[in-house]
Amino acid sequence: MARTSTRRPVVKINLDVAGGPRRGPDELAAEEPLEIRVRKRPLAVTMRTPGQDIDLAMGFLLTEGIIGSADDVVTAQLCAGTDTPNTYNVVDVVLGPDVPAPITDLSRNFYTTSSCGVCGKASIDAVRTRSRFDVAADTLTVPARTLAALPDRLRAAQRTFDRTGGLHAAGLFTPEGALVVLREDVGRHNAVDKVIGWALREGRLPLAGHLLLVSGRASFELTQKAWMAGIPLLAAVSAPSTLAAELADEAGMTLVGFLRAPTMNVYTAAHRVTV
Amino acid sequence: MARTSTRRPVVKINLDVAGGPRRGPDELAAEEPLEIRVRKRPLAVTMRTPGQDIDLAMGFLLTEGIIGSADDVVTAQLCAGTDTPNTYNVVDVVLGPDVPAPITDLSRNFYTTSSCGVCGKASIDAVRTRSRFDVAADTLTVPARTLAALPDRLRAAQRTFDRTGGLHAAGLFTPEGALVVLREDVGRHNAVDKVIGWALREGRLPLAGHLLLVSGRASFELTQKAWMAGIPLLAAVSAPSTLAAELADEAGMTLVGFLRAPTMNVYTAAHRVTV
Repeated sequence: MARTSTRRPVVKINLDVAGGPRRGPDELAAEEPLEIRVRKRPLAVTMRTPGQDIDLAMGFLLTEGIIGSADDVVTAQLCAGTDTPNTYNVVDVVLGPDVPAPITDLSRNFYTTSSCGVCGKASIDAVRTRSRFDVAADTLTVPARTLAALPDRLRAAQRTFDRTGGLHAAGLFTPEGALVVLREDVGRHNAVDKVIGWALREGRLPLAGHLLLVSGRASFELTQKAWMAGIPLLAAVSAPSTLAAELADEAGMTLVGFLRAPTMNVYTAAHRVTV
Repeated sequence: MARTSTRRPVVKINLDVAGGPRRGPDELAAEEPLEIRVRKRPLAVTMRTPGQDIDLAMGFLLTEGIIGSADDVVTAQLCAGTDTPNTYNVVDVVLGPDVPAPITDLSRNFYTTSSCGVCGKASIDAVRTRSRFDVAADTLTVPARTLAALPDRLRAAQRTFDRTGGLHAAGLFTPEGALVVLREDVGRHNAVDKVIGWALREGRLPLAGHLLLVSGRASFELTQKAWMAGIPLLAAVSAPSTLAAELADEAGMTLVGFLRAPTMNVYTAAHRVTV
């Protein structure tokens, strides 16, 4: 079983307390590399907190546009070797014969041209994926009062954070504010991929009528991942970026930022948040 | 000139105030892709806040082990095309003839073997770089009281954060607590690369006798970047991960976490923090 946290000795200093530094154990959030292999070839390495690694790999493949549904995956399993302690750091995925092989050479994602005029555009294209799901048409509405209660609910369910203070969280909620699934990770992208990979494996995609709450900021990539899973509302405890708001606008997704009761900002598609 | 933030209309909700939602402008931290090209080939795309992009590219190349000094770079410049608005999203780097070309095919970073036994090890190796600098021997010491004052100093210098609430910061300090340079970015790795790239271009590497403060958590990658720049003390306002502590231990680097006056935790090489 992978560890989500580890104890280490630490020197604790408190300048307001006499008696000098104390030595004691501290619980740290686990961070280890996960290699995602497709057709025996390494596709990506992500620094993640061990646990739910198959979900992470599945969610990553979906949100990167490499697979479109769970049916595209024949098998996905942790390497089962026993000769080193690190074999649980590799997920090996076998795709169906009709699924195009992912591009592993970064340069093939780009227009190879010596003209600089198009390369800014190419940079955006390189990081853009296309969602199969129309979230703009989603009829979800959520009372602002329900939204305001979610960060405390997310925080209360964060078991590893309680021990380590060091993990991002992503939670999938119903419009009534019920927590469907929560995932924690040192990487916020990984937490979201674990939620989406879980939903993919459960046959729940698209996640129409659901909302996703993240414990940190809303970046372009998190917004894109939510769109790839068909989620019509993304809420973040902290700030969104410009590109997150622009992408949410384009998708017709509701983007809520600075969700800190009793206040919040609604950046796009504000009609879904009722007051 | 690249924008570090942009105004967008936003719906502001405050459940404790009568009168319903207010519409108004909100300042968002800019996030755009930066493509780093080496020898006309795309090497990486990072989602960053525009500004100090040459520093970012130089810092990235150094901390990824692609260059060892500023002398390895002949030129590094933003694309100067004028036919699209996005040309400032590409930095084109020309390396000296003796510098080995970076590997752009991810799979070449790995042992290509069907055995799973070694792949966990390969995953770690794929993300590890080797520093030229011995930080273990660095004689830096810093009073805990000086450290405790730094987060407020960093925060006070964060100009874009004041407007957007949405940026990570990395600050390089002297042992006396003087701020040498501060960089902000939507990506915390980028903020650190911008600091290190600045130091590289200024001929200040290794950053012996300096300390680096980051506004968020201390991950493996941030610790590794600090080591690559020869920084003997890394401090973080939030939690470190297991792998960050393990790497700092190996490097002989001092790792301070949860730096929130009057308290802090010292995870490794605690002899450098004096009480």
